[in-house]
Amino acid sequence: MKRVKEQKIEIMAVGSELLTPYFQDTDSLYLTRRLNELGMAVTYKSIVGDEWESLVRCIKVALSRADFIIAVGGLGPTQDDRTREAYAFVLGRKLIYKHELLEKIKSRFKKRNLSMPSMNKKQAYIIEGSEILENRYGTAPGLWLAFGSKIVILLPGPPHEMITMFESYVWPRLINYHKGFTSRRILKITGLTESKTDALLVDLHPKTPSLRLTTLAYPGQIEIHLTSHSGRSLSCAEVKIQRLETKILERLGKHVFSCSGEEIEEVVGKLLTKNRKTLAVAESCTGGLLGHRLTNVSGSSNYFVLGAVAYSNESKALLLGVRPELIQNHGSVSPEVAQAMAENVREKSASDYGVGITGIAGPEGGTEEKPVGLVYVALAWKKGVTVTKNLFLGNRETIKFQSSQKALDMLRRHLIKNEKRTDISK
Amino acid sequence: MKRVKEQKIEIMAVGSELLTPYFQDTDSLYLTRRLNELGMAVTYKSIVGDEWESLVRCIKVALSRADFIIAVGGLGPTQDDRTREAYAFVLGRKLIYKHELLEKIKSRFKKRNLSMPSMNKKQAYIIEGSEILENRYGTAPGLWLAFGSKIVILLPGPPHEMITMFESYVWPRLINYHKGFTSRRILKITGLTESKTDALLVDLHPKTPSLRLTTLAYPGQIEIHLTSHSGRSLSCAEVKIQRLETKILERLGKHVFSCSGEEIEEVVGKLLTKNRKTLAVAESCTGGLLGHRLTNVSGSSNYFVLGAVAYSNESKALLLGVRPELIQNHGSVSPEVAQAMAENVREKSASDYGVGITGIAGPEGGTEEKPVGLVYVALAWKKGVTVTKNLFLGNRETIKFQSSQKALDMLRRHLIKNEKRTDISK
Repeated sequence: MKRVKEQKIEIMAVGSELLTPYFQDTDSLYLTRRLNELGMAVTYKSIVGDEWESLVRCIKVALSRADFIIAVGGLGPTQDDRTREAYAFVLGRKLIYKHELLEKIKSRFKKRNLSMPSMNKKQAYIIEGSEILENRYGTAPGLWLAFGSKIVILLPGPPHEMITMFESYVWPRLINYHKGFTSRRILKITGLTESKTDALLVDLHPKTPSLRLTTLAYPGQIEIHLTSHSGRSLSCAEVKIQRLETKILERLGKHVFSCSGEEIEEVVGKLLTKNRKTLAVAESCTGGLLGHRLTNVSGSSNYFVLGAVAYSNESKALLLGVRPELIQNHGSVSPEVAQAMAENVREKSASDYGVGITGIAGPEGGTEEKPVGLVYVALAWKKGVTVTKNLFLGNRETIKFQSSQKALDMLRRHLIKNEKRTDISK
Repeated sequence: MKRVKEQKIEIMAVGSELLTPYFQDTDSLYLTRRLNELGMAVTYKSIVGDEWESLVRCIKVALSRADFIIAVGGLGPTQDDRTREAYAFVLGRKLIYKHELLEKIKSRFKKRNLSMPSMNKKQAYIIEGSEILENRYGTAPGLWLAFGSKIVILLPGPPHEMITMFESYVWPRLINYHKGFTSRRILKITGLTESKTDALLVDLHPKTPSLRLTTLAYPGQIEIHLTSHSGRSLSCAEVKIQRLETKILERLGKHVFSCSGEEIEEVVGKLLTKNRKTLAVAESCTGGLLGHRLTNVSGSSNYFVLGAVAYSNESKALLLGVRPELIQNHGSVSPEVAQAMAENVREKSASDYGVGITGIAGPEGGTEEKPVGLVYVALAWKKGVTVTKNLFLGNRETIKFQSSQKALDMLRRHLIKNEKRTDISK
């Protein structure tokens, strides 16, 4: 067998509630972030309930494949809490009673004028050869133990107990094991399909495991996640990621709207603010989603003037002055109506930009000629207007989202182009 | 070793993004809920990245301990997507090219006037001996295969693709494997705090494990989840849950807006439709969210007439005819302005109901007198108007949500009260 160089880390979440539809293991996200900061990547996550046999099986698997195991949960006083017992069993070690632990647990209860229930006594037992990690906010102590070259860390499940314990006692110990430094970047893209994006980047996929490129596609948005690792220094990791990012930006150009995690509504907000422009929107099939997204950004009142949700034909006339003949002649889902909506809302609100969206979000209302997903998006400014015809796939929700995304992207591209033009004319 | 009777089910989520601090596997929650309905409990969840060696290891572990494996993700067209390949490798089966699959994938691109990128070709390969599960919303087909007595199901990661595929092709097959019967009910509540709800139900918590009551609280909404299990029949499970539900409804009364999973916007939509009433909304701090939520309901064009997002003071005058003196005298965040917004949007649109929302969503814009979270919501009808003053806790997003929730709930309670009144007068 070839020697595995990279450390394998497994986070194991223990608790039957995590196997119901209602609870998610969120502790592992926190742990992953902190581990990543030490250059330690998580290789496996496993989730298991309180049932003895499954728990034992899961621990055996973890010990067979990981160098570091962080198990979270199952250290409480009840019969269901058996993480400590199961690890002792699998490792073939005894549970040892610690009187000073019992005294600490008792004093926690005493402080609250309570006497310790007898079931809590089991929390005073630790696995032979382990170090105690103090729990400042609960009765369950954590444990740190070495098993051959492997490290096992048992932490309590409640987030505030887990985090405090991790920061106070686990992090300082982990620093001795850290493997270099990790840098991370998320590029967000719209206006390209996933396969087109991949095709453009196919030869940029890094060959070394210390640099990673992952593509994630959502309706209307693609994300490229870059991770770079260096054994030497953070700036080394940073240089590598920077070099890759630059190449990707050269290929994807203006399709990339953010390199720092920002949403497109924030990017548009910044561009509008910087250029001192204002915006009004007229929405039909998106029903208010575009206004909602724009106003999710704090400070949007500086550029977002108004929104008109003109859902019915009458309201398009009433709110926006769209002529009924226009709707009669072309239909409410038409480039002509989208254009009129954008132009009229701009004029009416005396804004610099006007957006008009009209389409069929489904699931009903589609025809052969005008199917579900057909959406016209118009952008109007002082000297012009542009209308796009789009055919979005998906359900009502994703069609609405993609429509609002398209509108934001049209405005973004227009603002960037205009900035460049202004720069040149200077 | 004792014979394990119960089926072991493992859900495996594949994707390197799921091992970062940014993404959680949410697909498994949906799958767990549906499996539970067939009396099938999930024993293990595992999460693994795209890296070949770990993926293969994880699959081997799953095959060694589970009878049913549902693997989600990693079926895409990119080099990172290797779930299909890894399963074929571990199972020792070939990948077989299916011409009809390729044609289907090609036609998906063709519909959008695109040609299929060559990398998508690999999605036309299936594991020898597997059945194809059609993907209506994407190019990645799912697979169902038997391996001895074990069942392996491969599903795509994007939720709308996964869910549609599961419902259409997996659920009907799984019914043959179900273990006992589970009944489930979700009661949704608004207008009560979590502790108030808990206090009202404290003595109703069931004593047997076959009947469960769980309370989940979100800003603006509380959910009570009931689960009842019976080895005998679905109607047995149903009777038990029905009895408990009736008791809860007696205690919580009109605060419960839904017992069947419906969102409040759907409940309001049905009430409006049934009573042949129409609605127009005037939004300030919610920025379009209320219109967005109303129009998420298919068929909402039958009752939702228009929305006016009047974010600036000028737009309140322009769109809604709110008198500038009113704003000057009382401030834009005031009961007077909320009332004028509701009344004016109702009149302007000739709707039966008008809603007005004005408030401070934060994080900026709060004062001692008018803090962040202060929101006035008004409901106007032909013969009257009512305004509520609310002080919501949370961030911008949750304050916006709670505001829209309050508006929907005011309308819901009004419609129910009016129905009763009409019934009596008959």
